[in-house]
Amino acid sequence: MNSFGQRFRFTTFGESHGKALGCVVDGIPAGIKIDENFIQSEMNRRKPGQNVYATARNEGDRVEILSGVFEGISMGTPISMVIFNENQKSKDYTNVKDLFRPGHADFTYFNKYGVRDYRGGGRSSARETAARVAAGAIAKLMLTELGIDIQSGICEIDGIKASTIDFEYSKTSEIFTLDKNKEDFQKEAILKAKGEHNSVGGVALVNVKNCPIGLGEPLYFKLDAQIANAMMSINAVKAVEIGDGIEAVHEKGLDNNDQIRKEGFKTNHSGGILGGISNGDDINVKIFFKPTPSIFLKQETIDIHDNEVECELKGRHDPCVAIRGSVVAESMMALVLADMALLNMSSKIENVKKVYN
Amino acid sequence: MNSFGQRFRFTTFGESHGKALGCVVDGIPAGIKIDENFIQSEMNRRKPGQNVYATARNEGDRVEILSGVFEGISMGTPISMVIFNENQKSKDYTNVKDLFRPGHADFTYFNKYGVRDYRGGGRSSARETAARVAAGAIAKLMLTELGIDIQSGICEIDGIKASTIDFEYSKTSEIFTLDKNKEDFQKEAILKAKGEHNSVGGVALVNVKNCPIGLGEPLYFKLDAQIANAMMSINAVKAVEIGDGIEAVHEKGLDNNDQIRKEGFKTNHSGGILGGISNGDDINVKIFFKPTPSIFLKQETIDIHDNEVECELKGRHDPCVAIRGSVVAESMMALVLADMALLNMSSKIENVKKVYN
Amino acid sequence: MNSFGQRFRFTTFGESHGKALGCVVDGIPAGIKIDENFIQSEMNRRKPGQNVYATARNEGDRVEILSGVFEGISMGTPISMVIFNENQKSKDYTNVKDLFRPGHADFTYFNKYGVRDYRGGGRSSARETAARVAAGAIAKLMLTELGIDIQSGICEIDGIKASTIDFEYSKTSEIFTLDKNKEDFQKEAILKAKGEHNSVGGVALVNVKNCPIGLGEPLYFKLDAQIANAMMSINAVKAVEIGDGIEAVHEKGLDNNDQIRKEGFKTNHSGGILGGISNGDDINVKIFFKPTPSIFLKQETIDIHDNEVECELKGRHDPCVAIRGSVVAESMMALVLADMALLNMSSKIENVKKVYN
Amino acid sequence: MNSFGQRFRFTTFGESHGKALGCVVDGIPAGIKIDENFIQSEMNRRKPGQNVYATARNEGDRVEILSGVFEGISMGTPISMVIFNENQKSKDYTNVKDLFRPGHADFTYFNKYGVRDYRGGGRSSARETAARVAAGAIAKLMLTELGIDIQSGICEIDGIKASTIDFEYSKTSEIFTLDKNKEDFQKEAILKAKGEHNSVGGVALVNVKNCPIGLGEPLYFKLDAQIANAMMSINAVKAVEIGDGIEAVHEKGLDNNDQIRKEGFKTNHSGGILGGISNGDDINVKIFFKPTPSIFLKQETIDIHDNEVECELKGRHDPCVAIRGSVVAESMMALVLADMALLNMSSKIENVKKVYN
Repeated sequence: MNSFGQRFRFTTFGESHGKALGCVVDGIPAGIKIDENFIQSEMNRRKPGQNVYATARNEGDRVEILSGVFEGISMGTPISMVIFNENQKSKDYTNVKDLFRPGHADFTYFNKYGVRDYRGGGRSSARETAARVAAGAIAKLMLTELGIDIQSGICEIDGIKASTIDFEYSKTSEIFTLDKNKEDFQKEAILKAKGEHNSVGGVALVNVKNCPIGLGEPLYFKLDAQIANAMMSINAVKAVEIGDGIEAVHEKGLDNNDQIRKEGFKTNHSGGILGGISNGDDINVKIFFKPTPSIFLKQETIDIHDNEVECELKGRHDPCVAIRGSVVAESMMALVLADMALLNMSSKIENVKKVYN
Repeated sequence: MNSFGQRFRFTTFGESHGKALGCVVDGIPAGIKIDENFIQSEMNRRKPGQNVYATARNEGDRVEILSGVFEGISMGTPISMVIFNENQKSKDYTNVKDLFRPGHADFTYFNKYGVRDYRGGGRSSARETAARVAAGAIAKLMLTELGIDIQSGICEIDGIKASTIDFEYSKTSEIFTLDKNKEDFQKEAILKAKGEHNSVGGVALVNVKNCPIGLGEPLYFKLDAQIANAMMSINAVKAVEIGDGIEAVHEKGLDNNDQIRKEGFKTNHSGGILGGISNGDDINVKIFFKPTPSIFLKQETIDIHDNEVECELKGRHDPCVAIRGSVVAESMMALVLADMALLNMSSKIENVKKVYN
Repeated sequence: MNSFGQRFRFTTFGESHGKALGCVVDGIPAGIKIDENFIQSEMNRRKPGQNVYATARNEGDRVEILSGVFEGISMGTPISMVIFNENQKSKDYTNVKDLFRPGHADFTYFNKYGVRDYRGGGRSSARETAARVAAGAIAKLMLTELGIDIQSGICEIDGIKASTIDFEYSKTSEIFTLDKNKEDFQKEAILKAKGEHNSVGGVALVNVKNCPIGLGEPLYFKLDAQIANAMMSINAVKAVEIGDGIEAVHEKGLDNNDQIRKEGFKTNHSGGILGGISNGDDINVKIFFKPTPSIFLKQETIDIHDNEVECELKGRHDPCVAIRGSVVAESMMALVLADMALLNMSSKIENVKKVYN
Repeated sequence: MNSFGQRFRFTTFGESHGKALGCVVDGIPAGIKIDENFIQSEMNRRKPGQNVYATARNEGDRVEILSGVFEGISMGTPISMVIFNENQKSKDYTNVKDLFRPGHADFTYFNKYGVRDYRGGGRSSARETAARVAAGAIAKLMLTELGIDIQSGICEIDGIKASTIDFEYSKTSEIFTLDKNKEDFQKEAILKAKGEHNSVGGVALVNVKNCPIGLGEPLYFKLDAQIANAMMSINAVKAVEIGDGIEAVHEKGLDNNDQIRKEGFKTNHSGGILGGISNGDDINVKIFFKPTPSIFLKQETIDIHDNEVECELKGRHDPCVAIRGSVVAESMMALVLADMALLNMSSKIENVKKVYN
């Protein structure tokens, strides 16, 4: 169960402090130019150790392609990519070897599997998301051929919400904020929590432009359902909203319906998805990240022998996982859309004939 | 793509105004007592036409089992169930035959498939959820054997939120409300909107007790991700929250972490899921339903020939889909947990040996 | 695990002596004319009770479509079909209620599931193949739109092999024989075995013409591998051969390779498949059916209480299952090819663009 | 489509002359001792360059585990393994860069994908099977915990059939022959063909002992059907037979049925599988390999520009692929059984309760 997608499918492997992590991306159509610089640039957006708002773990996150590309072109065969871990400090975890860190997966993994790789959370670490970004970069290369654009940013940190949404600005911001005017306050909130050995939550926004009408497979592979699935699979995500989803419950039907004119929908409360299928309008999705569970304050917990103990963590952690998480969310969106674009090809016999005639 | 689940898997079929709808449930262990009365009682909770807060379409929703059960016991073979439609009024849809109802899937289905069954929304109708409830009843029969309990109710209608949560009360309420003291206000809000030919939104809460620790398959079949997938696949759902998901983004890490004592977690902000795996605590999920898009007010739209028109719908509709939707959400939770319970069986070799020795 | 296929996927349900059997066919492109007469004509080719060479069980095998078709056209939604059982004689099985018929699945089902529907083999009965033929008819309707033709016949019965292959003749033959000159001998062999309360084996040949080049997904969904999977899933099949498969092991490489000229392959030893992908030449597959295990002679066996007993079966059975089995094999080929045709659509980005531009 | 299996699932990647090949094995229960020496010993059985009966390509086939194992124990997380290619001689393929080698997948890959990695067959090369053997070794480590044994050997080369079956002998034979008395003749046949720049076919036999009763999921994941699928996915395989499959078509029902006594089946014509489910008896499967298509004789073909040309191949090839192919077949059997063992765990509610109580 380490794979995602039906036709454009990726499988990831690797642990936080293991030798390497990586992915196998399967189902990529042949004939796509695979730009390794682009893949690396995507990795660099997510990679840790770049500023004070992220963990100090310093990883190059260099991607090595092992298969599936010949002379710079996708062959239709699986593209395997590996990222070797470089900056593990497993010693930081010696003191938590036998105990369950609150808010972490330690407790559930140990109970499920009977064993545990305690070093940095092992497989449950957000380090795994590096492999998602590598896979997502391949997905983006395919979506670019179809003219589909995806962008993301941070619309809330520690309760400080964006008033305006500026995706261009977020690309230059150290915290990927969507609202230039809120940036200083958001940064301050992060550093304050960090200074107190605590952490803050945040919300990411992912936006898709030029999505073709028709993506999403009813009834159990709807576009919004798969987006929810994809986003909720990201570490620390606890809620997902499509369009005006949460506000919509206070609205009346007349106000929430998007009426239609020749030139398109008059409003976009639906977030670009109707009946689980893209309607051609912008897709907007909000992803809610809880505050980082790794904090450096005393907490009560138990150990694997069921003794009650206190724990005080060490290690290097993001004070706000939403920031780098937004890049992962953007990658997951790309992976969902790439899959949906391939799945939708056979919706009508007319399209099937286009390929075979 | 009309199937859900890996090991406990159901497939649904049928349209709102077709001959019948139904499901095939596959992967049910042999030897479970299949209580047909229980299945029918679950159907009756969701079925329409029972009071002024629901659509007037009067369907008996009688389930007929065609296979998989012999002498009242599951055989390990697929259980197929059929519900024949009885109270279609397809004529109500003659005037919308060629136009796209705002807020509905008409536009996206027609664009995706090039054809459309306009009668009552066809396959995109929430009528399909009857089949989910039938499948969910089978899942519940299995979960009962493992001691797992699921309940649901309504915690918000038209912005009126529950202050207390009482699942027992909700079972007797016509609108499944969780807060007795808010019931009158919520009912009034529904009837007011209905009187104005409009509709309201709402929020359902699903709760699971006695869930074993360990359900959820990392990394791309996490319990929370599959719950999000399942819930977002229900008609009109636009957001899904696990535990305190939305509130959590305003909290600090220390406040949001659930610290642990011998007797269990001290709090349950996580909603019973850590790292995508159940932690043994109550699972709590909120599901946000938009206001019913079917309203009887003038709206602007276009028809299939791209002409701009006004539409005024007829037909029979729920003024608040969240109410009956909560039963569907409960069923989907049962279906997710049944699947997860079977998937988790092979997490450790120790468990594999239990079966083979 | 009662489903087959990835994109063109069918799920069957039902037992030999249950209320009904049927299937749900999912993934059918919208816009295909669904000719119910054709579906019924396919059913009639397989249906029992038509002559002395088949079982006397007399079933109309009338297919009722419950969903997915509107005004004679596929809607892109699941097509569900039901066949109600009419001519069960469950009493015939009273005497085998507690014992395991040799050569049958009774022993393995009981051990696997701990329970058993003893009436006519329950789910393990070849009666289930009626549902495959219904699904296969839908697949054929799609393949016809792409110009792909499938035919089948019997090339060996009780060791009497066809010397010539004439698919046209087989259509008119009561035993679907491919060689007119061997028909009398083959019929005689069947009747002789039947008279002795025994049974015979046989071999079916399935042939595909006008298959596009490129069907088959390396590496674990190769066309030949999926054909083998599909054919071996048919009751009583014990071997599958692609092209000259069995003879090829005695040949040298030079003789077995199909050399290529502008106008095509000079020979077709490969049976139209190279590297798991169709090469445009005729696909030829042989399917080996064991003699019917249901015979009316004394046999040694045990019962569910582990007592050694003798059994003498009653009931109505085909003296040679290969005959009607050939129609099922043809249907399975159609189902495999329909799936492969949809899967192959995204092999090159060029084809993806054809659909989206 | 580069993955195989449902619960015990592996995904392979890599091309013959690429940087590396490998696999990700997913679904392995936690707590299994992962013996790297055993994995390497399995690789060594298949690896090329060891004697005159195999290709001279000299690969160490050293497996490196990248994830999923901690302190020698499986963690329940995906095990990724990589084998770096060392002895490619891509120059050998310069002269076939633009032409389609008869009997190879060149023609079909190029037509399917529009591009081709011509070096050593790229992804279609049997070199990929190294990754299957690595994955198969993990499967064997799990099966050993359940007491299941698998063995294989060669029962026919160039028409010279084994008269006796001795799996112990085959382990010491350079050509894995099952019949010591036929070994010299078989070796001679291979060398003769090799001397003439030609190749020969062969048949492998795979045998399973101590298989639990009940493996195999009706109806579309039957044990025999999945074995056929698995075996036919191996390069050069053109037929698969279960038990006495091919001979059985000449037998009468009475002779072919395996009658049952308290101590077990009196005969094993069925090859250990009834109704698609293991019956506890030995599983026997024959796999038919065509003669190696890579021969060094003049052949007619066309190039990618549709010109008719003659080709004379260079390179290093096995004169009889069945030999090393038998190890791959054994690995595929292990992979199928590991998957089936996990799938079967939930066949009865009684077994589900064993895990949860």
